[in-house]
Amino acid sequence: MSSTSSAITSFAQRFAEKRESIIGDYLDFLRFASVSSEPSYQEALHNCLTWLQQQLSALPFQQQVWEVEGRHPTLFATYDGAGPDQPTLLIYNHYDVQPVDPLEEWESPPFEPTIRDGQVYARGAVDDKGQCFYVLEALRALYERDGKFPINIKWCIEGEEEIGSVALSQIMGKKKAELAADYLLVVDVGVRDLQSPSVSLGVRGIVTMEVSCRGSSTDMHSGMVGGVVYNPIHALVEVLSKLRDAKGKVAVPGFYDGVKPVTEEERAVLDLAFDAAEFRKTFAAEATGGEQEFPPMERACLRPTIEVNGIWGGYTGPGFKTVIPATASAKLSCRLVPGQDPANIGQLVSKFLIANTPPGMVITPKVLPGSGAAVRADATSPLVTALSKAYTEVFGKPCTCSLTGGSIPIGAELAAISGAQILLVGVGLSSDKIHAPNEHFGLDRLEMGYLIIARAIELLAQSRS
Amino acid sequence: MSSTSSAITSFAQRFAEKRESIIGDYLDFLRFASVSSEPSYQEALHNCLTWLQQQLSALPFQQQVWEVEGRHPTLFATYDGAGPDQPTLLIYNHYDVQPVDPLEEWESPPFEPTIRDGQVYARGAVDDKGQCFYVLEALRALYERDGKFPINIKWCIEGEEEIGSVALSQIMGKKKAELAADYLLVVDVGVRDLQSPSVSLGVRGIVTMEVSCRGSSTDMHSGMVGGVVYNPIHALVEVLSKLRDAKGKVAVPGFYDGVKPVTEEERAVLDLAFDAAEFRKTFAAEATGGEQEFPPMERACLRPTIEVNGIWGGYTGPGFKTVIPATASAKLSCRLVPGQDPANIGQLVSKFLIANTPPGMVITPKVLPGSGAAVRADATSPLVTALSKAYTEVFGKPCTCSLTGGSIPIGAELAAISGAQILLVGVGLSSDKIHAPNEHFGLDRLEMGYLIIARAIELLAQSRS
Repeated sequence: MSSTSSAITSFAQRFAEKRESIIGDYLDFLRFASVSSEPSYQEALHNCLTWLQQQLSALPFQQQVWEVEGRHPTLFATYDGAGPDQPTLLIYNHYDVQPVDPLEEWESPPFEPTIRDGQVYARGAVDDKGQCFYVLEALRALYERDGKFPINIKWCIEGEEEIGSVALSQIMGKKKAELAADYLLVVDVGVRDLQSPSVSLGVRGIVTMEVSCRGSSTDMHSGMVGGVVYNPIHALVEVLSKLRDAKGKVAVPGFYDGVKPVTEEERAVLDLAFDAAEFRKTFAAEATGGEQEFPPMERACLRPTIEVNGIWGGYTGPGFKTVIPATASAKLSCRLVPGQDPANIGQLVSKFLIANTPPGMVITPKVLPGSGAAVRADATSPLVTALSKAYTEVFGKPCTCSLTGGSIPIGAELAAISGAQILLVGVGLSSDKIHAPNEHFGLDRLEMGYLIIARAIELLAQSRS
Repeated sequence: MSSTSSAITSFAQRFAEKRESIIGDYLDFLRFASVSSEPSYQEALHNCLTWLQQQLSALPFQQQVWEVEGRHPTLFATYDGAGPDQPTLLIYNHYDVQPVDPLEEWESPPFEPTIRDGQVYARGAVDDKGQCFYVLEALRALYERDGKFPINIKWCIEGEEEIGSVALSQIMGKKKAELAADYLLVVDVGVRDLQSPSVSLGVRGIVTMEVSCRGSSTDMHSGMVGGVVYNPIHALVEVLSKLRDAKGKVAVPGFYDGVKPVTEEERAVLDLAFDAAEFRKTFAAEATGGEQEFPPMERACLRPTIEVNGIWGGYTGPGFKTVIPATASAKLSCRLVPGQDPANIGQLVSKFLIANTPPGMVITPKVLPGSGAAVRADATSPLVTALSKAYTEVFGKPCTCSLTGGSIPIGAELAAISGAQILLVGVGLSSDKIHAPNEHFGLDRLEMGYLIIARAIELLAQSRS
């Protein structure tokens, strides 16, 4: 495997030589406050996109910006210079990031990236700007060395992944020809730990909802009407408490219809190890949730869930206010597995909430945009082979297959419309605090990601020769 | 009853003559944003107190300001010019107000009092600045007419009623001599409607708590750990849902210990009528809450309750965030009746919450300051007689006795320390939206309150002659 080693070595050598400027560019990318969920960040998203366009203009790409009225655009770049004998790889990343609240829990400002002990702290450091950036750096390395790419490449970088990929989802129906590809690489996930390289054969689907419970037209005084009216916070709390039974199973009728039991074959091919001690160390949390009859990693990847992701109602400021509020609200999400249809699950949950509404209360569930079905990849595809090899080389350990508990709804849609075999990869870790305060990414992993992508593209080219 | 009528008439005539300046002073009082729960309003509270001192300096009072380090002070004024043969009446009001959120639901700014259709819209318009103001105006009328007050008067106007009367509660132990009185009139409640004058023989007690539920050290991603960890929102929701059983009874063991059943005698003397249609019209709400075995007004006044007054956790902003938060929290209050000890109830509820905590979660209940026992007055006291007569004269309808569902914890403490017979009065209505957006008070009722207090003080003087 001397050729293998030498390829990795030369990419690594380039990284070492250009380290300062690579990190500089990466931090520049992180400085854009590209929070897609809040309208006030519109300009930051625009500037972030412009920055990406500038970076890509130094590479042999044809660029397009896919605009959808009132939404954040998608950057789409194509390279067909490798000719029809080489495969076409569609790479997916996103340049938008999650909101930053609670802001006061950040040790350094989320959009002023700060390096501490080799870790870069910033919103998006990993998800997904970090993972997008090492793809960019890998493509630069290949182009600098050869003046071309060894395979045909299409790169789709969207700006709404964190709010349900609305724009890309809407426009992709008209972009079937542009998106057509042999392979689809979604670079937005992680590995269990640095000793356990793995590629992900799938993600769970998702459906998100907002639920409000109204009891009156105005906030009321708990002294005057406490004990008279049904408090909408109580009503909401009671309904939500019925979503799961005592053994952690989702109690919504029909929720599990179509879900296939986990087979021994699946258990055999998948890395489902769970390190309770490591989990405890990372989160100071115990694995006590979900369906008690399944082990933690099966619950995380192979089983559907329902979670309340937000709840609010009444007085939540300092001190106390003896209010019985007019309304109380919650945000819910279901993670789905193959066999579950997001729209159907949304309906079943809505029906359940309404059926369990206490007297005098009105519960209004609303399914939010951005639902998506689960995705499972073919473990025998050349894409899996190439990426597994690249991971094995870079990590120096054999690469396994895993499943990702998270959802990238656009992944399933992109796979369908592009006709490509899908694989989900990345070098995130569960300790990176993505979606939480103090998100961070190791510079060591920035380099590993870069090496994996550069090497995997070489290997994909060789798979056709 | 010709002397009766003429007394009321002359007070009413004075109100008509000075109407402009009376309303002007009242609106001035409302302009101070004296929100006691939020430190940023410190200066407004101070200015409000200074304004009150100025008003009282034109009356024959000795004034004291009772200071407690870091708290909002109490204004205490005494008049002993009526001599030892006349009774001493201790009047209680408060100059602090509730917070104003949700601010966007106010039709006019809460601290820019606005008159629409004879109603004054402002935070504190009723509770308790409106009721405090008409006491002031009644005292002015008596002093203008006679150059003195007919009885001895002590007036205690505190600045922390809405946050549990911490300062007054702390300092009152040292003020036993100052507070000593025959009668205690708490002017901070209301009547059922303008056809039904009543005085209140009691209020419910209260204990308030904040409860947090922690599952991990940091917010987590529901994709990665959904189904693995126990979501603290679910844990909190499940525990809170157990606080009451299917029939609305509080399920906390020992909660009802010591509560006496409602007797036929109590039902006979008390006005416990409930107008469902009026309630529906006012709140667009149904009386479906609380203990199903008791009628609405018994639930509101004679029975204890538990209510969640606030709940928050996870992502509550626009859009969606697939977070499993580190913590979720709630604010709870219990309304108490005679026979229940606030500290004991706080302990029982805490114990119940902890005992019902799901595995892997940590629930931390904290009893907040400002607890107070329930108060019940003696229906045969001269104070009740005088006030009932004044209400009957001013309303032109016979006055009944009622109970107030709300809590004025300081009332019980003041009654104990002053040795006074207590009565709770006021001219608030349930439709006044106290503690809610668009709090308002009718100028007709401002005048009625003024007439009642002036007349009742006269009647109290006559009760000794």
